[in-house]
Amino acid sequence: MEAKRDLPKLTLVPPLSPDLDDGALQSMEIGPLDLELGGRLGSVTMAFRTWGRLNEAGDNAIIVLHALTGDSRAGGEGGWWEPLLGPGRALDTGRAFVVCANVLGGCQGTTGPASIDPLTSRPYAMRFPLITIGDMVNAERRLVERLGITRLIAVGGSIGGFQALEWATRHPDLVKASAPIAASGALGPQHIALNEAGRRAIMADANWRGGEYASEGAFPAEGLSIARMIAMVTFQSRESMNARFGRKSATRPSLYPSFGGTFDVEGYLHYHGAAIVRRFDANSHLYLTRAMDLYDVARNGGEDHWLRQIDAPMLLVGITTDWLFPPDEVAALARRVRAQGNAVKHVEIDSPEGHDAFLKEWDLLTAALTPFVDRALENGSR
Amino acid sequence: MEAKRDLPKLTLVPPLSPDLDDGALQSMEIGPLDLELGGRLGSVTMAFRTWGRLNEAGDNAIIVLHALTGDSRAGGEGGWWEPLLGPGRALDTGRAFVVCANVLGGCQGTTGPASIDPLTSRPYAMRFPLITIGDMVNAERRLVERLGITRLIAVGGSIGGFQALEWATRHPDLVKASAPIAASGALGPQHIALNEAGRRAIMADANWRGGEYASEGAFPAEGLSIARMIAMVTFQSRESMNARFGRKSATRPSLYPSFGGTFDVEGYLHYHGAAIVRRFDANSHLYLTRAMDLYDVARNGGEDHWLRQIDAPMLLVGITTDWLFPPDEVAALARRVRAQGNAVKHVEIDSPEGHDAFLKEWDLLTAALTPFVDRALENGSR
Repeated sequence: MEAKRDLPKLTLVPPLSPDLDDGALQSMEIGPLDLELGGRLGSVTMAFRTWGRLNEAGDNAIIVLHALTGDSRAGGEGGWWEPLLGPGRALDTGRAFVVCANVLGGCQGTTGPASIDPLTSRPYAMRFPLITIGDMVNAERRLVERLGITRLIAVGGSIGGFQALEWATRHPDLVKASAPIAASGALGPQHIALNEAGRRAIMADANWRGGEYASEGAFPAEGLSIARMIAMVTFQSRESMNARFGRKSATRPSLYPSFGGTFDVEGYLHYHGAAIVRRFDANSHLYLTRAMDLYDVARNGGEDHWLRQIDAPMLLVGITTDWLFPPDEVAALARRVRAQGNAVKHVEIDSPEGHDAFLKEWDLLTAALTPFVDRALENGSR
Repeated sequence: MEAKRDLPKLTLVPPLSPDLDDGALQSMEIGPLDLELGGRLGSVTMAFRTWGRLNEAGDNAIIVLHALTGDSRAGGEGGWWEPLLGPGRALDTGRAFVVCANVLGGCQGTTGPASIDPLTSRPYAMRFPLITIGDMVNAERRLVERLGITRLIAVGGSIGGFQALEWATRHPDLVKASAPIAASGALGPQHIALNEAGRRAIMADANWRGGEYASEGAFPAEGLSIARMIAMVTFQSRESMNARFGRKSATRPSLYPSFGGTFDVEGYLHYHGAAIVRRFDANSHLYLTRAMDLYDVARNGGEDHWLRQIDAPMLLVGITTDWLFPPDEVAALARRVRAQGNAVKHVEIDSPEGHDAFLKEWDLLTAALTPFVDRALENGSR
């Protein structure tokens, strides 16, 4: 919540102040938000960063949509998509105005379960309403409209890919192109199951305290670590883990030496399990994995209906070794989009990195995104 | 530990008493056991059941080897392999003497971490030494020799398949045939990782108490439930879970209704998570999954060396949708066994049930096992 404490609440009007540094963390109140599954958030803050300049027509925008525990720092040094974002890169900030917001329900400045509920002056915790990918995109729409954006390209991976698909199907009036990467139209039961096991680990932690840990000065570090360990497995695949770890012995000291020799893959899990608790909120993990489970492009009307709403070019990117969103499911989605009469380009990235390839395979991602984004930027308003 | 409390400690000599009921739970002290990774168990009890009669030569035996949380009740009503075990079935108790023992480190009567350490008169808990698949088979050898068995067919699935492979490679003098089912020569890193997440869930449970829960009147039910949920996912596969659950809504009331609509697959996990704590020991789960991780047919000498030791026909059974022991790994093992000059039959069971097919596909298992076991029984002693 540091971002919220440190930053002035800016209500920006376009054009953005020309002396505002690219990539600076900003925040904006977007007002109350009615939610897809019922309930309402009385006041929503969006934390976001931008790069480049919005043109007069407001139609040279790209919204970049992050993954589960990601944040708005897509570009700049150390940004999670830095090699794709900047002047002359696939998301060319010399031509486009790029915005990346922390997701609704997250914990990097945007309203989420760790935020203070204005009604009680305490963190929402489990009183935070159940949110969906649809709600995230509704909040993003509110933000981009207040930034003066009239048309945008929606690009994202994993649950960011779900959001890109949601933008294309539910908000076609604003979308001039979309690129869901490493995402299909819904999560399969194997991963719903693993998400649920992770949630149970958080909720079983004695320090979770019914979600009220923040008010009580506690934190369910062990539960969140276990949830993260499970999630890290889903971000890779059998092939990628065989190649990377195999059955090699640990290369770092075991956190649990009393239980015998430790494999390299266990050291990797322990490392990421320990790292997540320094940067992520446990309740956000519950809400965001739940939103991931619940997403279904077909909901409320059927898939054909929603895929017919797409009114702009789409690029679907699968990864050969992705286990979370298997490439055959991405390919099948591309066929179904095409069957509804839409222009869709389908690219498969041949990578041993599993799902995480969308955060690693810079050359292949650049090759896939650049011509697609270029063409969409050239088209301007229709 | 009920078995140990209720049953007299029988020291049986062959031939078994002819009025002993088939399938009755028995136990035998097999003495001290030196362990592969060092350490020693001062006194080991094996709980086991038998069906059929051992012949004069002691060479018509079949040892059936159970999976992770299984037990000795392979046959009889409700037995986990009942359709395969009985007069005229694949494991024909009209001709063979079938024995199934609870595994070393388990909790169904055989010595494990919940057993009383004679040195302290308290449960071993985490003072139980780390055990291996090799130790399990050494204990089984002790048992079968005391039963008068001179030659046997080793048949088992999953970690029972590991044990069948261990019998064939480390104890060829006793093995007249072996059938490792749904197992390869070692577990891959993806599943070591998921096993480790499950162990961490048990150890993170405040009621685990460093493993001393039994002495302290507690039980890490939530941790064990989570470990079981993760394991249940590994026993299926993407294909099997898509077919069985898809994204269907729950068909039973949610255990956690406050967190939104529940999927069928979550109800399934909750059911199995709740069921395991009624029948299984949490520390056994730690030790047995660790033995599973550590198993490698190639250890201490290299795979070629050990596969050359095989001196009897082998049947390797893979399952098309097995994710825990993928069919291509089983096929590759079959090729490597053959490359060492051994007779190996490789069968792939075409089933949507995932790894668990070895507990479900009775017709296909019967078709694979019957001719193989028949021929081995006909061969008698060599």
